[in-house]
Amino acid sequence: MDFSNLAATEKLQQQLAFIHEIDKVKNIFRQTYLLDANRKENDAEHSWHLAVMAMLLAEHANTDIDAFHVVRMVLIHDLVEIDAGDVYCYDDAGYVEKEKREREAADRIFAMLPDEQAHDIRALWDEFETMETPESQFAAALDRLQPLMHNYLTGGQSWKEHGIRRELVVERNGHIAKGSKVLWDFALSMIDDAVEKGYLAP
Amino acid sequence: MDFSNLAATEKLQQQLAFIHEIDKVKNIFRQTYLLDANRKENDAEHSWHLAVMAMLLAEHANTDIDAFHVVRMVLIHDLVEIDAGDVYCYDDAGYVEKEKREREAADRIFAMLPDEQAHDIRALWDEFETMETPESQFAAALDRLQPLMHNYLTGGQSWKEHGIRRELVVERNGHIAKGSKVLWDFALSMIDDAVEKGYLAP
Repeated sequence: MDFSNLAATEKLQQQLAFIHEIDKVKNIFRQTYLLDANRKENDAEHSWHLAVMAMLLAEHANTDIDAFHVVRMVLIHDLVEIDAGDVYCYDDAGYVEKEKREREAADRIFAMLPDEQAHDIRALWDEFETMETPESQFAAALDRLQPLMHNYLTGGQSWKEHGIRRELVVERNGHIAKGSKVLWDFALSMIDDAVEKGYLAP
Repeated sequence: MDFSNLAATEKLQQQLAFIHEIDKVKNIFRQTYLLDANRKENDAEHSWHLAVMAMLLAEHANTDIDAFHVVRMVLIHDLVEIDAGDVYCYDDAGYVEKEKREREAADRIFAMLPDEQAHDIRALWDEFETMETPESQFAAALDRLQPLMHNYLTGGQSWKEHGIRRELVVERNGHIAKGSKVLWDFALSMIDDAVEKGYLAP
């Protein structure tokens, strides 16, 4: 589909083609269950939830951060999964080649935008992946905290399905502390409570 | 569910309870089909799509706007539907009492947040509803443009189901021009092309 027969400049056509393309993340399903535990959530829902969390929880970051920068980052962080697919955060095999596949996806997808925006959004995604700035560390913290909360609030449904143990959860989510010590303290108490309640294997 | 037994201040507990509550919009389905026409989309997916559109299309607003303000507005604009439900934009009967139901929903849902945030988010939602500022007019333009594009790109699937005609589409979406003349020109050419292609009754 293109928009070349309609009243739009070439630039607007590129933007709209991108907006069309990214609809696909609504059908990329994750391992996380919705909070009513009734089905798994998709990347669009997940990204929306993170964006609202970034709006509301920015005060808990370790340093002063630009909340809009975090919001923009989480809104686009999973677009590469249109080509690369979702990899469960406890799936070691899936992580092999993940980086390469996602970089190739970024090359294709972001390049659909007009040059300047393509460059900006690619830089935003690279920043998220590299996790060196306070904003990307906070974005990554939210990206881990949200599925933790979903697991806890659904009685560990996804943890149980995959036979996940406490040690692995702590190891894979520990970088939440880099973005927010406050949120990591909360997460850790939730993990321990999950073990106590039998949602998560010790 | 509350988080009172975990390591969180009362403020953080309120924020997390809100973040938990709003998960429900992932199960509020709209009349709009996804672009692969395979199922209807929900409010979380719709809000995410609008937020990315706001990031990318702000330059087409009639005046200089604060893009983050628009992004924040579209991220929360449909939360009231947790209590009030979604009303199809061509459903006249549904619009009776809609305002009252949505105000009551806003009273309950936003009040879950800590006072200052409750006030800010409620003000943001009121601003969206009143549609008097450039940011809210642009947000409303995106909120109309996105389902128009979905209808066009799915061959008018939802228009056909509801027997919608061109005149009504133009009437209900004309306020796109208030936010962006550029996007309204595009939308109008899309509507006319939809009639020509038989997606929309003349």
